[in-house]
Amino acid sequence: MNFASDNAYTAHPAVLDALMAANSGAAMGYGADAVTAAAEAAIRDLLEAPEAVVRFVATGTAANALVCAQLAPSFGRIYCHDDAHIETSECAAPEFFSHGAKLVTLPGQEGKIGPDTLARALQAGAGVGLNGGRSALVSLTNATEWGTVYAPEEVAGLAALAHEAGLPLHMDGARFSNAVATLGCSAADLTWRAGVDALCLGGTKNGAMAAEAMVFFDPAQAEGFDYRRKQSGHVLSKNRYLAAQMLALATDGLWLDLARRANAKAQVLAQAVQDGGGALLAPVQSNAVFATLPVAVHRAARAAGAQYYLWPDKSAEGADPVPVRLVCAWDTPDADVERLAAILRG
Amino acid sequence: MNFASDNAYTAHPAVLDALMAANSGAAMGYGADAVTAAAEAAIRDLLEAPEAVVRFVATGTAANALVCAQLAPSFGRIYCHDDAHIETSECAAPEFFSHGAKLVTLPGQEGKIGPDTLARALQAGAGVGLNGGRSALVSLTNATEWGTVYAPEEVAGLAALAHEAGLPLHMDGARFSNAVATLGCSAADLTWRAGVDALCLGGTKNGAMAAEAMVFFDPAQAEGFDYRRKQSGHVLSKNRYLAAQMLALATDGLWLDLARRANAKAQVLAQAVQDGGGALLAPVQSNAVFATLPVAVHRAARAAGAQYYLWPDKSAEGADPVPVRLVCAWDTPDADVERLAAILRG
Amino acid sequence: MNFASDNAYTAHPAVLDALMAANSGAAMGYGADAVTAAAEAAIRDLLEAPEAVVRFVATGTAANALVCAQLAPSFGRIYCHDDAHIETSECAAPEFFSHGAKLVTLPGQEGKIGPDTLARALQAGAGVGLNGGRSALVSLTNATEWGTVYAPEEVAGLAALAHEAGLPLHMDGARFSNAVATLGCSAADLTWRAGVDALCLGGTKNGAMAAEAMVFFDPAQAEGFDYRRKQSGHVLSKNRYLAAQMLALATDGLWLDLARRANAKAQVLAQAVQDGGGALLAPVQSNAVFATLPVAVHRAARAAGAQYYLWPDKSAEGADPVPVRLVCAWDTPDADVERLAAILRG
Amino acid sequence: MNFASDNAYTAHPAVLDALMAANSGAAMGYGADAVTAAAEAAIRDLLEAPEAVVRFVATGTAANALVCAQLAPSFGRIYCHDDAHIETSECAAPEFFSHGAKLVTLPGQEGKIGPDTLARALQAGAGVGLNGGRSALVSLTNATEWGTVYAPEEVAGLAALAHEAGLPLHMDGARFSNAVATLGCSAADLTWRAGVDALCLGGTKNGAMAAEAMVFFDPAQAEGFDYRRKQSGHVLSKNRYLAAQMLALATDGLWLDLARRANAKAQVLAQAVQDGGGALLAPVQSNAVFATLPVAVHRAARAAGAQYYLWPDKSAEGADPVPVRLVCAWDTPDADVERLAAILRG
Repeated sequence: MNFASDNAYTAHPAVLDALMAANSGAAMGYGADAVTAAAEAAIRDLLEAPEAVVRFVATGTAANALVCAQLAPSFGRIYCHDDAHIETSECAAPEFFSHGAKLVTLPGQEGKIGPDTLARALQAGAGVGLNGGRSALVSLTNATEWGTVYAPEEVAGLAALAHEAGLPLHMDGARFSNAVATLGCSAADLTWRAGVDALCLGGTKNGAMAAEAMVFFDPAQAEGFDYRRKQSGHVLSKNRYLAAQMLALATDGLWLDLARRANAKAQVLAQAVQDGGGALLAPVQSNAVFATLPVAVHRAARAAGAQYYLWPDKSAEGADPVPVRLVCAWDTPDADVERLAAILRG
Repeated sequence: MNFASDNAYTAHPAVLDALMAANSGAAMGYGADAVTAAAEAAIRDLLEAPEAVVRFVATGTAANALVCAQLAPSFGRIYCHDDAHIETSECAAPEFFSHGAKLVTLPGQEGKIGPDTLARALQAGAGVGLNGGRSALVSLTNATEWGTVYAPEEVAGLAALAHEAGLPLHMDGARFSNAVATLGCSAADLTWRAGVDALCLGGTKNGAMAAEAMVFFDPAQAEGFDYRRKQSGHVLSKNRYLAAQMLALATDGLWLDLARRANAKAQVLAQAVQDGGGALLAPVQSNAVFATLPVAVHRAARAAGAQYYLWPDKSAEGADPVPVRLVCAWDTPDADVERLAAILRG
Repeated sequence: MNFASDNAYTAHPAVLDALMAANSGAAMGYGADAVTAAAEAAIRDLLEAPEAVVRFVATGTAANALVCAQLAPSFGRIYCHDDAHIETSECAAPEFFSHGAKLVTLPGQEGKIGPDTLARALQAGAGVGLNGGRSALVSLTNATEWGTVYAPEEVAGLAALAHEAGLPLHMDGARFSNAVATLGCSAADLTWRAGVDALCLGGTKNGAMAAEAMVFFDPAQAEGFDYRRKQSGHVLSKNRYLAAQMLALATDGLWLDLARRANAKAQVLAQAVQDGGGALLAPVQSNAVFATLPVAVHRAARAAGAQYYLWPDKSAEGADPVPVRLVCAWDTPDADVERLAAILRG
Repeated sequence: MNFASDNAYTAHPAVLDALMAANSGAAMGYGADAVTAAAEAAIRDLLEAPEAVVRFVATGTAANALVCAQLAPSFGRIYCHDDAHIETSECAAPEFFSHGAKLVTLPGQEGKIGPDTLARALQAGAGVGLNGGRSALVSLTNATEWGTVYAPEEVAGLAALAHEAGLPLHMDGARFSNAVATLGCSAADLTWRAGVDALCLGGTKNGAMAAEAMVFFDPAQAEGFDYRRKQSGHVLSKNRYLAAQMLALATDGLWLDLARRANAKAQVLAQAVQDGGGALLAPVQSNAVFATLPVAVHRAARAAGAQYYLWPDKSAEGADPVPVRLVCAWDTPDADVERLAAILRG
């Protein structure tokens, strides 16, 4: 029973089928092949963004860090949530790729930055002068690290603040599919129509083996980006195998279908948590449940072999109740979900 | 009436005399000259550290950033106070020089990190895995950015925590002289005897034109450092002019004499603040006063031409009382100090 | 008829089978899975190096640049051939990952550095002082960029020079399999027994989709390496899919079998070149032919649809004879090889 | 008798006078002072460039590396001479500041890049694709590392090639004053009128203690530059002392006067070399003589205590004739010049 992460699960068969289909004959390297072209087009279609520049990499850390470095100079300030993946979970990759950009982290309930918080931070950032560096980028995560989502109008409000300050808006969409599935909006509504400048569109947690798309809605903001990607070792020579994965997800709405499956499993667990006397730490709006469990329930789950992280404090073992993070993937076995749910209900 | 910063004031005549004395005849470049040798020896003597590696640069930001990069890899975590100069005032230079090291900032009353806070942070840092990077360095500022000082035993306590975690301890001593002058201890007591591994010893704010020393008490920790300094453009070709400044300060206790002068001026202002209904935000233990002033007093000071920063919130103009920072240099005119003190008294 | 690169071809079916086999059930991320453990063990076995640290990445540029940055500081000098991939074809990735290390390029017949050349360069490097940086690493490519190979004794001679100078030896083995297949030696003979400290073992050009191994024979030299890899975005979350590819190649000698196939195709072309009045620019010792073709032959090949690069001067179109590079992969169709060979024979 | 470098000598008394004059009263830090404003204006006047952005740093390496990083991205190619200071003598600072830009070095007689060589290199650079990086900058040194000068029309020719390729032109003018003194042209003729985009104007070798100006003739190319300088630790807090030095040199033509003095001394040595059977390796057009000396003459010079470098091969000791570099400063004692000249004459 693995609820540790959505990256603990498998790739969808359609992804493997796409790899096999791509595995035929010669193709020019480094993205100059037909599968890559098709996959880039498919992502542009998915986003209703015919002019967008789309590129692929194999990890979410690479995607985020490359986009951050593209949009922020070494002396830039990047505004993000306290719990943003780029701050907590990428081993300072954005700083490394940008050569020093500072992440200015902002508090916010349930993983979301509020507009007042952002406005104040941008105002403060405008006054730090050479000492504090130059404001460069606002980064949102959607769905957030707390499993919540920003609605299009929320994104639009934050984007307006960023743009007023002259900054572009980056969206870390490692779980973008889960957000769209919950919101029922279009991918365009949640991105460029709301003012997002660059999107990292996750594939790995959505059913790929290892594939992420980076999307610049304004091609001018992608100037030189291919060199940047190459210099960091993130251009695959046999790029078709990377592209094929994203193409499979983008085909026939598979990306949304898989996200819906994962989200639904999380809803089952969320209900069970509440039924069993646990408390949700945040509304369950994507594929993860953040909750506190009575310690007896936690112990029963562990005894049954359930794998998950204590969160946000991994050292909270022994607390009562225990704060936990339960993540579902598209293919977390329903039997496992039901079994854990039964335990959670007490 | 300039109380904005101790870098707003002049170099001591002895420093200029030393420059003139050094300005004679040929000398090999890049530090291979007699003045440099004498100055390095003088700093080693001052610190009672005959084995230490001593080098000079022209700015405090360079000194701090070079030492941080020497002691922390790109994936390192550097623990420092929320208000540390390396965090707030160096335009992400430590991140730039180290290529990405993350400053993990810690709260603490009056600019000081408490041992419990550091212990918890180090414990947390030990658990972040690859995601969060590797704990690499603890950095203290003494005197702090709030004008307070760490006593030798406080430094020793924090150093012990750092060393237990396998990390070296860096001391940003831009105002180290002011701390020693207040504490009445030896420079050795406050550094290597207390467990400090590397010291940035400020000269600029202490009466030099532009000179700082970097000291590694364990030569092994300075391995390759000269290349690092060279690559960052911080090796002066006519190095004798840099060294002469530090030599002048280290001669006949001038460094301590000047620090005492600055500290004494701050005491005058501190008393005046309290006499006039203001409140000290932190004990005045070096050459700066952090206080809130009744807005009427603030307005009177401004009307009289007093220059100083609102602090820590530069945008606090209009608040009542107003938080301010009043910094004295060795040569802040006594007349100015008296004049401002009179205003502060109301 | 694609002879442009060995990365223009496909992954071996066994690689895809391994992906499918790995695509089952939950597995912890970031390499903490059984497939990764098995693949690392397989590479250690292949190299008869039970203590070696083995890690995987998806591109050869990442592998080389990460190892270079691990073994050379920002102020380091990395000695390599004028035509080394790290110099000509990685968009300055080694400089980026190391933050400035300088590639000192050395001439050499047929893509190989001679011992006298290396000895002189290391001697010169010992005298450049701070100005020129510190000698840090020697990097060889085997098979070379000219399709030739260093024999174990040649590697040993160069390694001895490097080690005498206190430098480790890196081997870029993007086509290591082709070299071993030609030499008939063991992988251990060509690496650690000859003094190689770190090997980048290519999988992509050898029949993987996107997989390379980095091997440090002395674990001490891999200190901190996992953080470095993580910070550069090269740790895959679903690492089993990366490892499975290398495991497939390492199983039952598939890696050598595929290399032999590619090498044999190159021999066919080499003979045809000579039969048709072309001249080999270097002995054909791996899977590529470097030759000059009579312009008529070149035109006939192009007319028949043969894809390949002019080399080393891509702008040599119009020269007579024309210098070309013809690369074979394990699965370059024999029919294509025969067809091109017929054209080459004139 | 020190002929090792022009940085082995002293600062002109006017520079020290300027320091003393600046050493009075309070002044806001980081360049917001009257002396800095005056010095920037003086450099703009000297260059007849009223719109130029002028900034100061303390070392030539910092000046060059900051400008290179401003004008070239991490994936940029910087074209320079094989013997350019940025290539041979700055410990890979341009690579460090730019985070990886590659110096593409070009051969050329007497330290100068010929237009055909540059044209071919730019054409080749246009064809290297992602593999080789993107052409970003052309850098000239004037006076060159061989003591020769580019005339305005030569600069204009090279600048035209750079601009046609879309690249800006940087001039390393560590000895710019010596070049202007020889050419008798205006500083404007040799820079912006000839197409130079950014100039590093040396002060240190021209009679300052430690001061260099960086000049961007097009302010748009200086966008964000102050942050870049700050982040690298090269903004002095008491900036007036840096600026005062450059102001002194720019006042009443002192910079040219000192350069003429140094140049004249070199002419004396050049004549003596030839009189004594030595051979000039390059025309003596600035303040250094590059020559081969009969070994007997060399030994006599060494015996008399003359300090100078063998050059370009520092390990040429024992060759006959011996290649040497003899550098004069504005204040190399005439007695020393005469004494060495007498020895050189044999």
